[in-house]
Amino acid sequence: MKAAIILGPQTDKATMKKAADVLNELGIEFFARVVSAHRSPELLEKIIAGMEKDGTEVIIAGAGLAAHLPGVIASKTLIPVIGVPLASGALNGVDALYSIVQMPKSVPVATVGVDNAANAAYLAAAILGIKYPDIKKKLESLRTKIKEDLAKESEIEL
Amino acid sequence: MKAAIILGPQTDKATMKKAADVLNELGIEFFARVVSAHRSPELLEKIIAGMEKDGTEVIIAGAGLAAHLPGVIASKTLIPVIGVPLASGALNGVDALYSIVQMPKSVPVATVGVDNAANAAYLAAAILGIKYPDIKKKLESLRTKIKEDLAKESEIEL
Amino acid sequence: MKAAIILGPQTDKATMKKAADVLNELGIEFFARVVSAHRSPELLEKIIAGMEKDGTEVIIAGAGLAAHLPGVIASKTLIPVIGVPLASGALNGVDALYSIVQMPKSVPVATVGVDNAANAAYLAAAILGIKYPDIKKKLESLRTKIKEDLAKESEIEL
Amino acid sequence: MKAAIILGPQTDKATMKKAADVLNELGIEFFARVVSAHRSPELLEKIIAGMEKDGTEVIIAGAGLAAHLPGVIASKTLIPVIGVPLASGALNGVDALYSIVQMPKSVPVATVGVDNAANAAYLAAAILGIKYPDIKKKLESLRTKIKEDLAKESEIEL
Amino acid sequence: MKAAIILGPQTDKATMKKAADVLNELGIEFFARVVSAHRSPELLEKIIAGMEKDGTEVIIAGAGLAAHLPGVIASKTLIPVIGVPLASGALNGVDALYSIVQMPKSVPVATVGVDNAANAAYLAAAILGIKYPDIKKKLESLRTKIKEDLAKESEIEL
Amino acid sequence: MKAAIILGPQTDKATMKKAADVLNELGIEFFARVVSAHRSPELLEKIIAGMEKDGTEVIIAGAGLAAHLPGVIASKTLIPVIGVPLASGALNGVDALYSIVQMPKSVPVATVGVDNAANAAYLAAAILGIKYPDIKKKLESLRTKIKEDLAKESEIEL
Amino acid sequence: MKAAIILGPQTDKATMKKAADVLNELGIEFFARVVSAHRSPELLEKIIAGMEKDGTEVIIAGAGLAAHLPGVIASKTLIPVIGVPLASGALNGVDALYSIVQMPKSVPVATVGVDNAANAAYLAAAILGIKYPDIKKKLESLRTKIKEDLAKESEIEL
Amino acid sequence: MKAAIILGPQTDKATMKKAADVLNELGIEFFARVVSAHRSPELLEKIIAGMEKDGTEVIIAGAGLAAHLPGVIASKTLIPVIGVPLASGALNGVDALYSIVQMPKSVPVATVGVDNAANAAYLAAAILGIKYPDIKKKLESLRTKIKEDLAKESEIEL
Repeated sequence: MKAAIILGPQTDKATMKKAADVLNELGIEFFARVVSAHRSPELLEKIIAGMEKDGTEVIIAGAGLAAHLPGVIASKTLIPVIGVPLASGALNGVDALYSIVQMPKSVPVATVGVDNAANAAYLAAAILGIKYPDIKKKLESLRTKIKEDLAKESEIEL
Repeated sequence: MKAAIILGPQTDKATMKKAADVLNELGIEFFARVVSAHRSPELLEKIIAGMEKDGTEVIIAGAGLAAHLPGVIASKTLIPVIGVPLASGALNGVDALYSIVQMPKSVPVATVGVDNAANAAYLAAAILGIKYPDIKKKLESLRTKIKEDLAKESEIEL
Repeated sequence: MKAAIILGPQTDKATMKKAADVLNELGIEFFARVVSAHRSPELLEKIIAGMEKDGTEVIIAGAGLAAHLPGVIASKTLIPVIGVPLASGALNGVDALYSIVQMPKSVPVATVGVDNAANAAYLAAAILGIKYPDIKKKLESLRTKIKEDLAKESEIEL
Repeated sequence: MKAAIILGPQTDKATMKKAADVLNELGIEFFARVVSAHRSPELLEKIIAGMEKDGTEVIIAGAGLAAHLPGVIASKTLIPVIGVPLASGALNGVDALYSIVQMPKSVPVATVGVDNAANAAYLAAAILGIKYPDIKKKLESLRTKIKEDLAKESEIEL
Repeated sequence: MKAAIILGPQTDKATMKKAADVLNELGIEFFARVVSAHRSPELLEKIIAGMEKDGTEVIIAGAGLAAHLPGVIASKTLIPVIGVPLASGALNGVDALYSIVQMPKSVPVATVGVDNAANAAYLAAAILGIKYPDIKKKLESLRTKIKEDLAKESEIEL
Repeated sequence: MKAAIILGPQTDKATMKKAADVLNELGIEFFARVVSAHRSPELLEKIIAGMEKDGTEVIIAGAGLAAHLPGVIASKTLIPVIGVPLASGALNGVDALYSIVQMPKSVPVATVGVDNAANAAYLAAAILGIKYPDIKKKLESLRTKIKEDLAKESEIEL
Repeated sequence: MKAAIILGPQTDKATMKKAADVLNELGIEFFARVVSAHRSPELLEKIIAGMEKDGTEVIIAGAGLAAHLPGVIASKTLIPVIGVPLASGALNGVDALYSIVQMPKSVPVATVGVDNAANAAYLAAAILGIKYPDIKKKLESLRTKIKEDLAKESEIEL
Repeated sequence: MKAAIILGPQTDKATMKKAADVLNELGIEFFARVVSAHRSPELLEKIIAGMEKDGTEVIIAGAGLAAHLPGVIASKTLIPVIGVPLASGALNGVDALYSIVQMPKSVPVATVGVDNAANAAYLAAAILGIKYPDIKKKLESLRTKIKEDLAKESEIEL
């Protein structure tokens, strides 16, 4: 498995599924796990150990509220971690964004936009692309296709 | 030791010392440790294990930026954890406040005001006070003294 | 009664009920009162006096908007006060969060996340746990159960 | 005394003095007191009782952080209360602004801008002006003078 | 007419009606006008001139977005102006709050909470109360009634 | 074509249509295109080149989230660019507002309110009005009509 | 005079001088006035009348805090108004930004970045450039020069 | 060259040098360029073309204010782009953070904390580490060293 998607337990699965959809579209193998950094830390350690052993090369972690999950994973592995701040609760994702992006020196999380799980997958592909030319090529095709689709729909009447 | 003060490594010691000062004034024994939730997680686990063994009854944890320290401690012990969000960096403590207070269900951190380490100590005393009548009494004396001091300085010319 | 839940009059009861549910689950006796810090201050003083007399050991207070209730209670008792900022009105709970957490030196309120009344109850249990080993044990069981439940639902397909 | 200026104990006196300066300029009698809503509530009640007895007609209250002072005063008197949110601490007055302005229904505080104690005095004068024609006249003269001064300095080179 | 309620044209009438309801309950005569500070400035001047002539003693002005209406009124009269920031549009009233409360020195607007038109009326009553003892008495009765109603509903089951 | 309306691909067309409506009402010729600054940069360059060639005199560009579109256009032409920040996603337009308005020195974007596409068109008309007296005249008529309509609806019962 | 720079009285002249510097560099004639929308509204009307008479074609208005100045000008003229939100006071320019940019429908202000008076002048030049080819040419030269200067300093050692 | 550091022209070099320091410490070759996305877009395209040709594998881009630079680079290459939001100007980096992180679907920027250029370099190393085992090993050594250093300084007196 090249990639993993890790979700907090109260995370909206529909939002994180967008990451899975993009990974599937790009033919990148992945697995998914639900785990809590705070309520099941031992399970999280087991999952991280599994990823190290299996050679997972990039991790996507989505979390809301205090959203420590991506950072806690990043503290226990050198595999690059991509964090997706999720808008849940009254602060609407600003809490999660700050908690994920403001990591201390030497333990970064690659943060994408609030609820933008698709972009986490695109970023995972770009990272894997530096090692796997075929992933880079697929990503290039996908971006070209998006470009062509946009071109077709450019002229509108308002 | 009844209390512990745990600081992130980039934490301003002068700010956290205000907690120590209040604990000292109230005669509450404590020890202090610097540790990073992300950069030295094993050390943190050792410190938590030590606190469990020694019977520490309340933990004050100060952190800035993503400020995961108080929450990570709370995820590994049932000892009440008081979190002090510290204003460091461009977001000026709002990041730390959100990261500390917005903990998920079942793993709370008792959050006090940004940079208000003194209040973490007062809160620790109130918590210990439900078990130790002498601490409650000392806290009462201190609050009475503060009240009397304020009364003396109430009349001013502007 | 070991615990009390105090609500502002415009407070959403359904949100605060989550604190009651957790207290019930942990077998912690409590009573509940609706009172306004500003519109019925004498009633509040009477309720506080009652809690002092009855030996209430921890107070959960939920309020929205200017949300002075937890702080005003904390100014009149040494019983630890846990504040729940509630999202009501256009500012969506940021107002209540700031008003509750930014208390002045010597009068702290133990603040939990916006609308997170369940966590107020978990924190109350942790605080009572330093005095009552059975509450600590029940809390431990509950956290273990949550952990086990999470473990069962960890493997998902996205 | 027609007006009163009430300050929290950690309030910057220099900022609140600007209210005193405007009141003096308009010939409005006032007295000033330092008191804490949370640390010396009995003193506050005594001061409020004194104002009721002496016929104080408008109250200016300045506070920072959780800034409950103006609201707590407003809950105990029908004298109009003008609140001045003060920028102290990391949240820079946004906390005080929200805590003062977002009062619940039936207990308003007339809020002015952050640190704008001068405007609290101008507002006090406008309020007193509905009863005392000479204050209204003095306010009018002052506003006319400000207008004339501005007119003189309008043409500039940049 | 003792009071006036002035609304911006895009203002939600239902929200501002709450001010009217409180004024009616307190027996305070008022009239209401819709006017735009920016789109019909001449009409606004005419309305202000009318209020000066008719002896209006307090003005309630509600506005959303840039919300200049209360401040522009305050710049053209010495009658006390109470501003109600209204939550309309994406910024949800924070824009209106800042625009209304942050007025420059010598031209204050007495600001109440976002969408809290009822409190504007309570504040108007408190201001009029310094001149008209019967309004103060009615306000007192209403606050007492609110207090008694709250007392009856204080005991709840959660 | 005197004006152009350029939209990001995920932009709500209904919101941007309000700009078109005002341009139509003022008789200002325009065309509309959907294009992404990031996903179809070559198409954007082609559209800009077309506008330069056709003598487009003012550009309205609407975008949400990171909202680089107006700024990227402004970096490639001297035609004045009006930016409309759109509220899409969890940050509700504050992200787009900051991204559009905070442009670096020498490459300004004339920013209007969040979702306020109508105002972008009014601004476009005011800009064109410095060159085309008939547009200025039409704008004047429209503002007069708005004023008269407001005057008719000014007197209300609340 | 093609352009005008209007400043609020408490506005930092040094910040607004940057607009003057750019206008001078581009050879655009302008005059400057200090005036308060709230404290000297009659003077403001006189200045606006003067600008209408003299054929001023674009107005730059800088203001801090509630920052009504640009919007009030825009309500009284069809000359395009560029607003510069200035960071003064505790809210650091967010107040001014919201007050200037969130204008109601039909009375837009072309807003530039906080304290970015230079960009107001660049925008003024772009607007004038649609009518005056020589200004467009000068603007083009200046942008080319900036580009060339940047190119020279591109290679650095870190 | 494996890595590149691209800076906006008004970017604080001292802040971005921290990225260079970490890259140097990890023995990762890099070059640095100053370029503006808006003022020298052609130069930027040339630099991007150069990076594609030279086989640059990860790009660190730092920018303040509207901070389009990282996103514009990401729109023109599949090389992973790491964005560093810089705190410059009155909005103190929140503007840059939102502009960098909230990129649209399919064009992600891996965002790190405000002013945290060191973390951009650590993230670059983690990304390169999936392809170059020696970089991963060096990163591991550095993290171990940081851990050991922290352990030595853990016991403090407050």
